[in-house]
This record gives sequence, C-alpha cells and structure tokens, in this order.
Amino acid sequence: MSDKINRVVLAYSGGLDTSVILKWLQQTYQCEVVTFTADLGQGEELEPARRKAEMAGVKPEHIFIDDLREEFVGDFVYPMMRANALYEGLYLLGTSIARPLIAKRQIEIARQVNADAVSHGATGKGNDQVRFELGYYALAPDIKVIAPWREWDLTSRTRLIEFAEAHQIPVSKDKRGEAPFSTDANLLHTSSEGKVLEDPWEEVPDYVFSRTVNPEDAPDTPEIITIDFERGDAVAINGEGLSPASLLTKLNELGRVHGIGRLDLVENRFVGMKSRGMYETPGGTILHLAHRGIEQVTLDRGAAHLKDELMPRYAELIYNGFWFSPEREMLQAAIDHSQEKVTGTVRLKLYKGAAHIIGRKSPYSLYSEKVVTFEDDQGAYDQRDAEGFIKLNALRLRLLGRRDR
Amino acid sequence: MSDKINRVVLAYSGGLDTSVILKWLQQTYQCEVVTFTADLGQGEELEPARRKAEMAGVKPEHIFIDDLREEFVGDFVYPMMRANALYEGLYLLGTSIARPLIAKRQIEIARQVNADAVSHGATGKGNDQVRFELGYYALAPDIKVIAPWREWDLTSRTRLIEFAEAHQIPVSKDKRGEAPFSTDANLLHTSSEGKVLEDPWEEVPDYVFSRTVNPEDAPDTPEIITIDFERGDAVAINGEGLSPASLLTKLNELGRVHGIGRLDLVENRFVGMKSRGMYETPGGTILHLAHRGIEQVTLDRGAAHLKDELMPRYAELIYNGFWFSPEREMLQAAIDHSQEKVTGTVRLKLYKGAAHIIGRKSPYSLYSEKVVTFEDDQGAYDQRDAEGFIKLNALRLRLLGRRDR
Amino acid sequence: MSDKINRVVLAYSGGLDTSVILKWLQQTYQCEVVTFTADLGQGEELEPARRKAEMAGVKPEHIFIDDLREEFVGDFVYPMMRANALYEGLYLLGTSIARPLIAKRQIEIARQVNADAVSHGATGKGNDQVRFELGYYALAPDIKVIAPWREWDLTSRTRLIEFAEAHQIPVSKDKRGEAPFSTDANLLHTSSEGKVLEDPWEEVPDYVFSRTVNPEDAPDTPEIITIDFERGDAVAINGEGLSPASLLTKLNELGRVHGIGRLDLVENRFVGMKSRGMYETPGGTILHLAHRGIEQVTLDRGAAHLKDELMPRYAELIYNGFWFSPEREMLQAAIDHSQEKVTGTVRLKLYKGAAHIIGRKSPYSLYSEKVVTFEDDQGAYDQRDAEGFIKLNALRLRLLGRRDR
Amino acid sequence: MSDKINRVVLAYSGGLDTSVILKWLQQTYQCEVVTFTADLGQGEELEPARRKAEMAGVKPEHIFIDDLREEFVGDFVYPMMRANALYEGLYLLGTSIARPLIAKRQIEIARQVNADAVSHGATGKGNDQVRFELGYYALAPDIKVIAPWREWDLTSRTRLIEFAEAHQIPVSKDKRGEAPFSTDANLLHTSSEGKVLEDPWEEVPDYVFSRTVNPEDAPDTPEIITIDFERGDAVAINGEGLSPASLLTKLNELGRVHGIGRLDLVENRFVGMKSRGMYETPGGTILHLAHRGIEQVTLDRGAAHLKDELMPRYAELIYNGFWFSPEREMLQAAIDHSQEKVTGTVRLKLYKGAAHIIGRKSPYSLYSEKVVTFEDDQGAYDQRDAEGFIKLNALRLRLLGRRDR
Repeated sequence: MSDKINRVVLAYSGGLDTSVILKWLQQTYQCEVVTFTADLGQGEELEPARRKAEMAGVKPEHIFIDDLREEFVGDFVYPMMRANALYEGLYLLGTSIARPLIAKRQIEIARQVNADAVSHGATGKGNDQVRFELGYYALAPDIKVIAPWREWDLTSRTRLIEFAEAHQIPVSKDKRGEAPFSTDANLLHTSSEGKVLEDPWEEVPDYVFSRTVNPEDAPDTPEIITIDFERGDAVAINGEGLSPASLLTKLNELGRVHGIGRLDLVENRFVGMKSRGMYETPGGTILHLAHRGIEQVTLDRGAAHLKDELMPRYAELIYNGFWFSPEREMLQAAIDHSQEKVTGTVRLKLYKGAAHIIGRKSPYSLYSEKVVTFEDDQGAYDQRDAEGFIKLNALRLRLLGRRDR
Repeated sequence: MSDKINRVVLAYSGGLDTSVILKWLQQTYQCEVVTFTADLGQGEELEPARRKAEMAGVKPEHIFIDDLREEFVGDFVYPMMRANALYEGLYLLGTSIARPLIAKRQIEIARQVNADAVSHGATGKGNDQVRFELGYYALAPDIKVIAPWREWDLTSRTRLIEFAEAHQIPVSKDKRGEAPFSTDANLLHTSSEGKVLEDPWEEVPDYVFSRTVNPEDAPDTPEIITIDFERGDAVAINGEGLSPASLLTKLNELGRVHGIGRLDLVENRFVGMKSRGMYETPGGTILHLAHRGIEQVTLDRGAAHLKDELMPRYAELIYNGFWFSPEREMLQAAIDHSQEKVTGTVRLKLYKGAAHIIGRKSPYSLYSEKVVTFEDDQGAYDQRDAEGFIKLNALRLRLLGRRDR
Repeated sequence: MSDKINRVVLAYSGGLDTSVILKWLQQTYQCEVVTFTADLGQGEELEPARRKAEMAGVKPEHIFIDDLREEFVGDFVYPMMRANALYEGLYLLGTSIARPLIAKRQIEIARQVNADAVSHGATGKGNDQVRFELGYYALAPDIKVIAPWREWDLTSRTRLIEFAEAHQIPVSKDKRGEAPFSTDANLLHTSSEGKVLEDPWEEVPDYVFSRTVNPEDAPDTPEIITIDFERGDAVAINGEGLSPASLLTKLNELGRVHGIGRLDLVENRFVGMKSRGMYETPGGTILHLAHRGIEQVTLDRGAAHLKDELMPRYAELIYNGFWFSPEREMLQAAIDHSQEKVTGTVRLKLYKGAAHIIGRKSPYSLYSEKVVTFEDDQGAYDQRDAEGFIKLNALRLRLLGRRDR
Repeated sequence: MSDKINRVVLAYSGGLDTSVILKWLQQTYQCEVVTFTADLGQGEELEPARRKAEMAGVKPEHIFIDDLREEFVGDFVYPMMRANALYEGLYLLGTSIARPLIAKRQIEIARQVNADAVSHGATGKGNDQVRFELGYYALAPDIKVIAPWREWDLTSRTRLIEFAEAHQIPVSKDKRGEAPFSTDANLLHTSSEGKVLEDPWEEVPDYVFSRTVNPEDAPDTPEIITIDFERGDAVAINGEGLSPASLLTKLNELGRVHGIGRLDLVENRFVGMKSRGMYETPGGTILHLAHRGIEQVTLDRGAAHLKDELMPRYAELIYNGFWFSPEREMLQAAIDHSQEKVTGTVRLKLYKGAAHIIGRKSPYSLYSEKVVTFEDDQGAYDQRDAEGFIKLNALRLRLLGRRDR
C-alpha cells in the first residue's frame, strides 16, 4: 500500500465483491477507479454493471464493457483445444483459460487511460490471483497490482457486508444469507467450489449444477451430430458453419440437454493445496473428444505421441497462469505446426451424460483401408518386413537378456 | 525356415487358426509341437483345446493348460493401472498387457520341455507379433521364433480352410462363411477389428459388442458402488475384499450391466499403419477412473504431475511390446514408489454407459478442509504469502516483458 | 530385386565401394545409373568422381556434382545447433545431420532425370542406411531403394576387390591392404570406426585423428575469439561476418589448431547394437558451447529449461534418421520460436583440447546486474517476497510431511 | 517475528555473517541459540567455530560440530552422479546438493534439543534460502524458520560491521575491506559469485580460483587414471578401493593439479533472476564424465535414453531445492533401478583443464565386438533384417509423404 496510485483499472463484474472493492480502492488509495467488465459468455447482463459503476462515481469514459466472446473462444479456447489439454487427466481448464484474456484487456485499458495500477477480486488462496497477476506483469512489467483480498481487513463475509451497507452498496438477499458455494462462469464452463463442496467424500448436490441437466433427466434417445474441423479448429456443426463463439454456444446447448460435461474433481492448486471443485463444461467436453477424433485419422503417430507427451506440461502452464510465457508459446508453436491437416468431420453420439465418437473422415486421412485390411492388400504391405522390424527392435533386449537372465 | 527345429511351444487357443498352425508346424518343420493354452479370462472353455491337441497328435505331457487369471490381473493389469495408462489418450491397452504374460509362460514351458522354438498365431500386420516376439527374445535371447502368418502361403481364408479340410481339422460353419470381424478377449477387455469395422466413418454395428449392453438398454437407475484401494491396487468392492481377478470379474459384470467401457478408436500401430478397433473394457474403465479418484486425495502434486508426464511414454512402451525392457521397469519403479499411500475408498456412480466419481476419502488424505476453506482458517494459510509467491514467479516474465514488449 | 528398375540415382563418392556399387547396379539391374556426388566439405576433390563415373559409362548429363556446403550448414547444422543437440550427452551428430540433405538432393535428382530408384553405399549394420532410406521414403514414398550391401554376395573385402579387379575398377594400394578403420567426413566432423577401434578399452591410436592436432601438440598460449550470433545462428568470428559454411570452416581451423573436439564414444545405434566411434568436430564443438553461452544471457528460464528437456528427444530423432518427420519439425518449431532474441557476442578461450566461455553480452540480455547485485538494488527486488515464495512452494511438502514423517 | 521462539538451531560457520546472526538472534528473539557446524569438506578448521560459539554464550551441549563428509558424498553426491545431473547443460550442482543434508541435520538436532526454530545465513535473493527452507518444512512441517537476511535492517555491509563491532564480534581485516566476491565450498565444489564477477562479459580474474591450478600452469604431461564403478558408484581409483569421501578427495587433488572443472556460468535462479557464478568442481567433473563412460558399455539404450530425458527435470529439482520431494524420489527410484549392472572400469586422461575418456570395460558390457564388427560376424546379425526394420519405420512417413508432398 506504500506507493501513491493515481488511477487503477479494476476487473469489475458488478457483483457484491467487486463493488465493495471499487469503493475500497477509492477510499484506501484515494485514486480514480476505471472499471472493466468483460462479456466472456458468462450469461449475465452487463448493463447493470455500468449503472452500478456510475453510481459509485466512476466517470462514464472510465467504464469499459467489452464483448470478448469471439476473442475468448478463437484466440484462447481454440488454441488450447488443439493441444487436447487436460489438467490432471480430467479438467478442461475453463477458468484458467479466461484469466489471461481479462489480464490482457485490463492492461490495454490501463495504457489507454494512462492508469498506473490494476486490481482484481480474486482471493489469496486461489489460482486466479496468480493467473491475473502473471498476466499483468508479463504484459506490463512495471504496473502496480492491487489485490484487495490479500490487503484489506474485510476478511469475513459479515465484515464485507457491513462495509457494503455502510457505503450504500446494494446487497441482495441471497448474498446476505451466504450462497452455499461460489461460482465462476464463461462460455467454456461454470465452476463451483467451497462450502457444501468442501467434503470430497460427499456427492455434489444437484442444485449446484446450472449448465447441464442431470443425465438421468436427459432425453432417452441419443442425438447424433457432426462437427467439421479445419486446421485443428471446429468450424461447423451438422454442416452449418459457425464462428468460434457461436459454435461453442451451440455445443453448450447440445451438451446441456444431454447432461454432458459434469466433473467432480479434487485438484492440486498452484499455491500448494488441494481443492475440490465441480465443473460443467458441456460444449467443451464434446469439442475435446471430437478433436481427438479428427486427429485420429489426420495426425501421424510421431506428431500424435509427441503431442500427448507435451500435453500435461502445456496444461499445467495454463493452469498455473503462464499463458504469456515463452515456454507456453514454444509448445503452442509445436502444437500448431501439427494441425495443418487436421481437417475433416467427426460424428458423435450424445446420450445421457456422455459423448461418444462413432465416425470420422477427412480428405487428409492417413488411415488406409488398403494397407490395414485383413484381405489381400495387393502388395501395399509386405508382412515379411515385420520380421526384420522385430529382430532389430529385439536386438538390444537379446543382448540384455544374454547378460542378465 | 532354415534351421532344424526339434520341439516348438505354440500359443494355442484351439480355434481354427492355431489348429491349422499346429498341423502346419508338424508338417513343415517335422518337429514336435507342444501346446500352451492360457485362461486369461477370455470366457471360453479350455478342455476342448486339450482334446483337439490330443487329436492332432500332441503328447498328453506336452499339452499345457494354465489358469493365469490371478497372475494376469495382479502382476500385469494392476501395475499398469497404477500408471493410469492410456494409449493415445483413450485406449486401456487390454490386448497389449496380456501378451507379455503369454510370452513369459511360453518361455517357461519351452525351458521345461526343452523346446528350441516358440510360435504364435499373430499376423504380420499387427502389434501382437511384436509383443509376443519381443517378450520371447527378451526372456530367451536365443530362442527360435516361428511366425507362420509371415512364412506360409496360406494367405487367404479359402486356402486356410482348404488346408484345414485336407488335414481333418474341423471347421465350424461360421468360420466357413467368414466372421464379419475378428476378436481378442481376456479378463480386461474384448477387442474387435477388421472387415465391417474397416471404414472409420461407419458406426460400429451393435452385433459387434459382446461384453456390454447397449447404454440405451442399461438400467434407468444409476448404481452407486465403492472401491477400496491399498497402495494403489483395488482390493474391495462395496466393502467386500476380493482377489485381483475376482475383483475385475465383478467390476466387469457391473460395467456390462451399465454399458460402460465401449471405445471406438482409430489408433496408430507400432508397425506404422492406422487401424480401427472397437474395445470393450467394462471393469477396466471403472477401475481406471476410480484409481484417478483415489490418487486425487492421496498423491502430492509433484508426484501426480510427474506421473501424468511419464504416462504417455509408459503406455506407448506397453502398446509397442516393451514390457520386458529396462525403461518400462524404470518407469514402473518410479510409479510404484508413488503408490505407497494410495489407499482409501472411491465412490462411483454407474449409469447408461459412463462411470462418474462422486466421492473419495482416505486415511492418508492430503486434502485439508482447514487449509482450503473460504472460511476463517485460523492461520493455516497466510494469504499474504501469495504476494511473494506471485512476485518471484513473475520476476523472469517482467524482465522478459521489459525487453520484449 | 524383384521389380524392374530403369534408372537409379546413386550417392556416389568415387571411392572403391561406390565404384563397385555403380558397376554392380549396372550389371545386376541392367539399368542406367545416375551418379550424385555432393561436396559437404569432406575435403576431397570431386572432379575425379566425374571422371570415374564417365569411365564407368555414366552419361555426362547423368553425373551430378553439387556444392552443398552452404545448404548443409545453413539449413541443417545451424537448426540443429539452435537445439544444443547432443546424442547420449556427448555426440554432436556430425554424420547424422548430413544424411537427410544427401537423401533430399538424391530425390530431387531422381525427379529431374525421371529415375525410379535410388541407391547408397551404407552397410546393413549401421545407422546411415536408416537415415538415407527414411529420407527417401518420406520425400518420395513410392521410390524404389537399392541397398547393395544388404543384397549382394560381396560380403568380404576380398570378394569386393576381386569384383573391382574383374571390372577394371582401380583399387588403390591402401585399399588392398585394408584400411585399419573407416571414416566419414563433412564440414561438421570426421568420424572413424571399425577395426582398430573395436575394443572400447583400447585408446584410439593417434594416427586415427585427421582433423585436429593432438592437444599436447597444440599451442602453449591460449587463443581468445569472439563469435557473434543473430537469432540463434553464428554470423561472425572476431567481428568478421561470414556465411554459415565459411564460418564453420574458419572455426574448424581454429579448433584444429587447438586440438578441440575429439570424442571417443561408445554409442547405441538405432539398429540395436553398441558401437565405438571416434569423432572429431573441431568447429562444431566450439559452436555448440558458444551457443549455450549466448543463450545464457538471452533465453528466459522457462524457454531454456523446456529446450533442455526436449533436446534428448530431438537429438535421438536426428540420430535415428527422422529429420523429415512431423515430430522433428514440431520440435524445431518450438526451438526456433525461442531463438528470436538469441543475439549477441560470446567470448571464448581455446586451449589445449578445450574451449571455455569467458564472456557473453547481448543487446537483449536478460541478465540484470541491478537485480542480482549483493549491493543495494534500489528496490529492484524485495527480499521479503522470498518468504511467501518459499512458503507456498513448501505448502504441499508440509502437508506431505505432516502425513508421512 | 511475531511468534515467541524459545530455542533456535542455527547453521553456523563461525564466519562474520553467521556470528552476527547468532548475536542478532539472541537479542531479537531473546532465545537460546544452538549452533550446528558441519564439515562437508569445505577445507576449514571447525574448532574455531566452537570457540566463537562459546564466546557468544552458547552452552557447550548446544554446540554441534559434525563431520558429514561420508554422508554427503555417499548419500547425496553419489545418487546425483548416477543421474548424470547437469543444471542448464553445464553445472554440476555442487552447492545445491549440500543444502538438503545441512537442513536434515539441523532438523535432527532441533528434535534432539527440543528447539522450535531453525535459522540460516542465506540471503533473500539466492537459491540457498529456498533449498534450506524447503528441506526444513518437508522434514518438520511445523518448525519455525528465521531468515535474518530477509528480516533485519543490517542491509549493508557497513551496518553489519558496525553491529559486529558493537557486539565484540571479531572482524578480520579482509572482511572490513570487503572481499571482491563471495564463496561457498564443500567437498564437491567451490562456487564464487558477486562483485567482480557481476559483469558476465568480463573474464573471471585468476585470483578467484582456489581449487584448481590454471590449466596453463598444469603439467605438460597427461596423467592416465582408472576409476572403478560398482552399481553406478565409484569405488576405486587406480585400483585402490576408497570410501566415497576419500575417493572424491583424491579425485579433487587430481583435478586440482590438472586444472580440471572450472566453469564460468550465467544461470537462471529459482527466484527468477539470472546470476553469474564461477564454479570449480575438480573431482566431480572427472567423476561425471567417468560415470557416462561406464554407462556407455553397461546401460541399455532404452535405459540410457530415458535417463537422458529425465535428467534435466531431476537436475532442476535439486537446483530448486526439492531434494525431499516425492517427484525427486520417484526419479531417483527410476535412475537407481538402471544402475544395477553399471559396474566396471573407466580409463581417463587428465590434461590441461580437461578430462577425456580413453577406455572402458565391464564384466557386464553390452558392447559386442562380434555383433558390431565390419568383419564376418558369423550370423550374429542378419543384415537383411535391416530392410524390414527400415520399411516399417518408414511406413507412416510414406503414408504422410503420399498425402503431403
């Protein structure tokens, strides 16, 4: 809190917490607050955020509300999908991938309005503070960062609400009575954690889910869809060409109906603790699987296996907040290089909580029926080659065996 | 075919192909054939194999029929499950993991009966020839290997059947009219490939599946089960202690009923081509997920992420047939080291083709509600530490940013 | 030998072996032979090869002699140097990296002259046959490949010489009396193996070395040089700008004088056996070290460590002959991405068999004296940040310690 | 400084800095200080430390002086050498590997004397604070850690010396006039950094070196030595069996005489900055190379390449202070598994600043002259096998080539 701040750009949702932060920043730092509210497809209206910011005394020209949905999906979600990224084998990184975009836009605004600081509403125990701040520092090394949750003394919800009431910040009834868990949402996923989810032995209560129907309530009839890919990116559903954000929106609806993409996970946070989260990633779950499907016929084994080996590291980098790092960019360069011919169509069956690949085809398919067939392959493959192949692969094992067995 | 063979141990199923091989070996090499038939849980009676071998002139003391189910699951499937092994992101390696055990037992028998050669019925296009033969050569570097499919001229099914008929080998009616696909089965899985499966765009016909009900025909009510683990291995279902093979048998039944573990895959074979297979791994699919579940609360992040990074290589080694290799053993040593405290219970929901983790607990849990809670943690975690953590993680990115941006 | 060959492009050195091959191809396949002789800096005159080819009846328009030195260093050696590639920790891959270029040019010529086959003089035990042929097949999947050493019956040197004499192929005196080892040379290195080198316990005799003076005979005074790099590639020595091939030539001379770059290695061949080789890589050894030196100040830690982890795989791919593979290209894309700011100057001391980095500087240096200093850094680094950094890095270890110790 | 400390175990060298810390701890925390001085082979007498501690009022039973040389080399250096560990391609980790042992012993003493805190003299900018404290926390999760350099206000050398004089702490003349660089030493290496070394373009002045003669002053005649290994560990020099610490001591002397093991490095610290250090690791440099040499003939390729791929991660873990982490232990398990037959003898030549392998032999050698020979190998290797080997390795590249080229 030492340095004098003149103007700070706050990642502002318009909710209770960031409204309190807005006021607290004005008071504590005696500085101008610039609000930035992003539409990442979280499904909330943003105009109320504008009104609340105005009421809090933010100048109209200092209220930024941006629709970043296409950039989010096209420049962040899609590159990540090319990598088949899964954190700890299961998690599709829905929260992690949104943070660098918010950080990037905040820094752009800071430059535009000549702000000397940025601020966010992430707590001191979570990963998001790291993701935001690594993004800030990478893009603007000398920016000042204010993380109110690590600084202030509003460390209980009661005190937060007292502060809100003392400063005419509206507190909705459900906030008063403490929500039984906390959520984060964007076009890729909704995450929930805390409170009722804190015992990892207890099943996630049904009321926690908001983006998917319970698989038991999903249609009794499967639905068949196709997804077209071009150079590794999904471009059409059932033959209808769609922009990245529109495509993901449509996949979300399909996933929602069929109860696809629920994940109950205990994960390892970058800050060193384990946490339990519930994730709903309806469209992303389908997209991830479909991308594997199209790679099956278009990627060479060497490329595919290298991608599989690099993937855990890539996912870890995104989870830990290192999107804007040379090593993430290096891995991306390798991954993107592999996607040039990842073009074609995947057919999927959606049913009762799961998606299944049932077909894939491509003008660039490397699958050769002629080579693989049990029938006469007319010389496409000489089975006698296998003997030499095995013999030389075995040579070192034989030399070892003679020594050791 | 150059060297004189005296006695050969044949991996013998009693089916048409290996019956033809038996006769062909006797004729071509003028040698004694020793048959070895393993019960790996493929679900076929083995006594007919004994009778057929006898009819083909194999001496009674040269007919080996072994129940290897416990060894298969305990010494091969379980170590692999500790690694969370998936080939190309999806395949549970059900065929791959059985081959080294068959090879090992064949070599043991060869030593016992003083045979100078071994033989198998795998074709020259597939992975199994590699897996068998790398196993043979690793364990008995100077053994002679006869791979009839790569040597003989019975290269069409018509000629194979002619040979069978000419030698009084019974040919069942369905073999005459060519099965529409070929299968391999053991306690872990059934694989199907070839013919009707050769177009990867066409959905797998329902009659191909034999180990699982169609998810659409599975019960409308989910079933909840628990699996107990000790040091990384499953030891009980719903509290009932079971041996490895019994446990997997029970999980297979649970998976079968709920239509769990079907996989339609286009994969990259070690011999360089792509093939399309359909796999049913009912119990293994549940086990794989459950193991991830118990690791979530008992494995430290460092161990978990290292395992995830090593896994693709480990799976590739098993797929390619390098079970008996120093590098697989080194990876196994690392993996096994991590499993000492992987003990506890996972709760799963089985429903309509999928399994879902819904709870996990362990006496060795590293999950700390006290540390992670949003509520007052009474000093278990100092949020101010996060600032230094982020600052030093950011330092190199800031130095980079000052240079590059 | 089954298929009819019309025209074959032979990698032809003009030496005894490839001269015999030339004749053998003409006889055995009754086909036209096109010769291709590359100047890769091996230090031999190439015009004799032309004369010999003519004498063997090759049409003048079918004799190709190309100076590929700049392409060799610029497009093959330099990209490899960007990776700091070392095979098995020590070997600079001097032979491996030349083979793909020869294969590429052979295929270009085959297309130009409408040949249907290519041929080379590598034996059936070595790596080079693999490197040549993987290159051929990758670039021309349907080309026919003739590997005489694997086909013919000239399996002893005596028979080879008899064949030569019977066909008026000149045999120099030293060939008659069998050279005591065999060599391969190009601008990057000279390798020697076989015969007197086959006992890995025996020291390499001094007469084997041809590119470097014995360190004991090197000057008693060290020599200081500088190498300038731009985007990862060496561009000047002692301030004098040089093309890739000229630069390496000059470094070779410097290395030669100071006895730098000798390596006595037992290595693992791709074909499964161990072999013992002696390598002289005078300029390459200096270049490799210098590149590490410039990366020390210009590469971020994340990029540097990722490179180090990827390097063994990259080196193995080149050693095994997979230059023209998607996975090598993916790794190259990642590596090249990291080199944008690898620009600056390295100062080295050359003395008695070794090179030592003694200084490095760069306009893009990430080294900050201000940050690192033991003196007052005026706020560039807050030592208190370290506490939080350590605390959160330790958190998981403390949770583990509480459980396990 | 918040919590009440009763008794603290200080890693105490007896030098100025830790003497000031001793006094400062007594004053600031009003607590008993227990001193621990380790002999890690740094080459200083330890009894003066005892006297100084007594003079500072430490109770005799609270002064611990331990000779840890054998434990250091046997349990820390040797396991690391098995891995061929090099940080950033060049650094033998001499400082890094000593820290966990000191931390371990400090915690043992803390338990013995019932202390509630530990303290060290490492600064807030370096890696050593991290290595000490991660060790402390891993072994004693609830210990209190006091890092004076991050806490106190003695932030300049002038103030440190004033404090010393005010408290009757003897300050040697050379400390007053500030040493031109700082050093750390143990049996494995001496490191120097700071001040005169801070400009990475300037050559390290000759007076910085203390453990090795200048190569230019080394003997003009090379010296040949042999090192025997058993299961990956060096056990004898020139046939004379030696304990780990004795062996390293002897190798240090050999390295010293021949000027071996100097390294001028710019490295990336874990705390995010680059630093420039000079390292002298005379015996370790020879040992590292010799270990590679014995592995060349005794390790299978699969094991060797896996080790090479894992090594950078392993080295990074040690550098960053994660010796006591599950992932380091997992990697160690894998590495140690590979060393069972790493037994035999390496012959080396030491000359003017460098060591060279000139021979290696082993009763477990996998090198087979019979297989590799250019001469008639009597059927040990069938060159015709290479065709099939290449063909199947090429198959995927051909399918790719048909699609892409």
